[in-house]
Amino acid sequence: MNPLIRPSVQQLTAYTPGEQPKDSGLIKLNTNENPYPPSPAVARALREFQLETLRLYPDPISRSLRERIAALHDVSPEQVFVGNGSDEVLRLAIRAFTRSGGAIAAFDPTYSLYPVLAAAEDVGYRSVPLPDDFGWADPPADLDASLFCLANPNAPTGVLYPLDTVEDFCARFPGVVLLDEAYVDFAADYDAVPLARERPNVILCRTLSKSFSLAGLRVGYAIGPVDLIGALDKLKDSYNMNALAQALALAALGDIDWMRANARRIVATRERVAAELTRRAYRVVPSAANFLFIQPPDDLTAADLFARLRQRHILVRYFPAPRTQNHLRVSIGTDSDMDAFLAAIQHQ
Amino acid sequence: MNPLIRPSVQQLTAYTPGEQPKDSGLIKLNTNENPYPPSPAVARALREFQLETLRLYPDPISRSLRERIAALHDVSPEQVFVGNGSDEVLRLAIRAFTRSGGAIAAFDPTYSLYPVLAAAEDVGYRSVPLPDDFGWADPPADLDASLFCLANPNAPTGVLYPLDTVEDFCARFPGVVLLDEAYVDFAADYDAVPLARERPNVILCRTLSKSFSLAGLRVGYAIGPVDLIGALDKLKDSYNMNALAQALALAALGDIDWMRANARRIVATRERVAAELTRRAYRVVPSAANFLFIQPPDDLTAADLFARLRQRHILVRYFPAPRTQNHLRVSIGTDSDMDAFLAAIQHQ
Repeated sequence: MNPLIRPSVQQLTAYTPGEQPKDSGLIKLNTNENPYPPSPAVARALREFQLETLRLYPDPISRSLRERIAALHDVSPEQVFVGNGSDEVLRLAIRAFTRSGGAIAAFDPTYSLYPVLAAAEDVGYRSVPLPDDFGWADPPADLDASLFCLANPNAPTGVLYPLDTVEDFCARFPGVVLLDEAYVDFAADYDAVPLARERPNVILCRTLSKSFSLAGLRVGYAIGPVDLIGALDKLKDSYNMNALAQALALAALGDIDWMRANARRIVATRERVAAELTRRAYRVVPSAANFLFIQPPDDLTAADLFARLRQRHILVRYFPAPRTQNHLRVSIGTDSDMDAFLAAIQHQ
Repeated sequence: MNPLIRPSVQQLTAYTPGEQPKDSGLIKLNTNENPYPPSPAVARALREFQLETLRLYPDPISRSLRERIAALHDVSPEQVFVGNGSDEVLRLAIRAFTRSGGAIAAFDPTYSLYPVLAAAEDVGYRSVPLPDDFGWADPPADLDASLFCLANPNAPTGVLYPLDTVEDFCARFPGVVLLDEAYVDFAADYDAVPLARERPNVILCRTLSKSFSLAGLRVGYAIGPVDLIGALDKLKDSYNMNALAQALALAALGDIDWMRANARRIVATRERVAAELTRRAYRVVPSAANFLFIQPPDDLTAADLFARLRQRHILVRYFPAPRTQNHLRVSIGTDSDMDAFLAAIQHQ
């Protein structure tokens, strides 16, 4: 132990992001990236960006971006926070909505970043086990956590919890509920924005990484009550969003049709692949996201399938934790990517 | 008080960044921005950036950028951390190098972000008063802080502390010394990199905001011992640097000559303005930065001068704290900006 470093930091295990291989021959189905490019409006914003302006500090509060997001969701700009990826939103929410010695809670399985962020902020982490089908589980009343991180659709399962279930939970939970909606644009018939607009304890978090094809730009946002949003604002780095991220995100959010068209294509591909996998005796968890959480037939372990796919230059995600070790998470690529994936598992 | 929000966050006063006015008619000498544009190599990197790649996550560890910074300073990439502006480096350092109930220390006056970050991280803040000329003060031996944030050149004074003084202090201080070198490219005959390379308790922090004319890009970095750098890495957001920031910073750091030429011009302008102000009975603190910290003649308060300059469309920075309220901080712009500034104060 180095006495110069905070002990909890020395004990910390950092989050392991999905591999970003240099090998461009790989079919990359491991980090839920969008296989389609960002909107031409983003390309135009990049071309027209005035490089000279980079010598100046960016707008510290991303005002134009907040205004556009506010207009999209029919809230006021004061109900919007913009972050350097939704990672920043999550980190700040954990800081703002816990106390020293407090705890956050989330389902198991869920997004594996939550416990890492809790450890980094030195707060406890309460895990609420989901049933075997990864459907809803009512968190116990004595949960003793001041923030519940609720990914919906959940990751890595893809399961979408119904709005009325979520709404009931938000009404009951005594702390803040953070609805992490990274994948919501791939879900149908679901809109939780009214909860974030109206309830004093609900914050909703979105990202441009998946549906807007902008994982490389690091833009996420939160919608919620003015006082909760204000707490995130106090804690953020003064200039958390660089000028290019602000300009390009603004352009992307001005072309919702492009995002929706890509999301529709991805959903169509997802449904085709899910049906084909089911036909081949794979267990496929019903997904409302841009990935499938699948369990191979009995004669094949998930770990083996992962390794064999890797040999065939197809990269998927394997989470070797107790609740996830029998499954693989497969991001939905183009139809041709997925045909290659289906062909590769054919030969197992 | 909203019981959902951490009490220390509710009590927090966020950092006040210098004003970023929309009015383009203003001469902006308030945030130490570089008046010259970024290198043409940055323009080229922007033009050649493959927009399509934004659909993918960026390199989580900014490897190419770390390698270039390592080569520049003759250290290994493991001794380099890259952050979303040096703000991120400072925030993470305060988190990593304090304990619960601990404290950081810094001089007074110094960069006004330090106490804000300490409050956000819920650690104490010990202030070591500087003498009236803002020169060095030996921190007391019983300082009871595990991290000393030492801006050198100091802000908002511009004073450069000699290397041997800094080195003595680093050898004596029992905690981590963070040398915040945001302005070091405007200083002469000073190189503290060997301290960060060799001492187990020294981290040095730089930014591309000032000398590289890239305040809008949000890129800062740290150099230090592998274990201290590793602690920052554990705490950072997984993908803290977007792909554009990585690509453009790499280009900027590949054209050091451009940065140096601009720094030389700014230093020449600074010396000319300092001499002229001295001639006009202003007290000018000797500056090794891209700004001057000045005290107007006896018949004029700093607050009044600030207001009058604002009326004449010249924006400078006024810090209304006890140790700084008699001074203004004036960023060095182009020669023509500074001529306008000198003309405006002529008429007070």
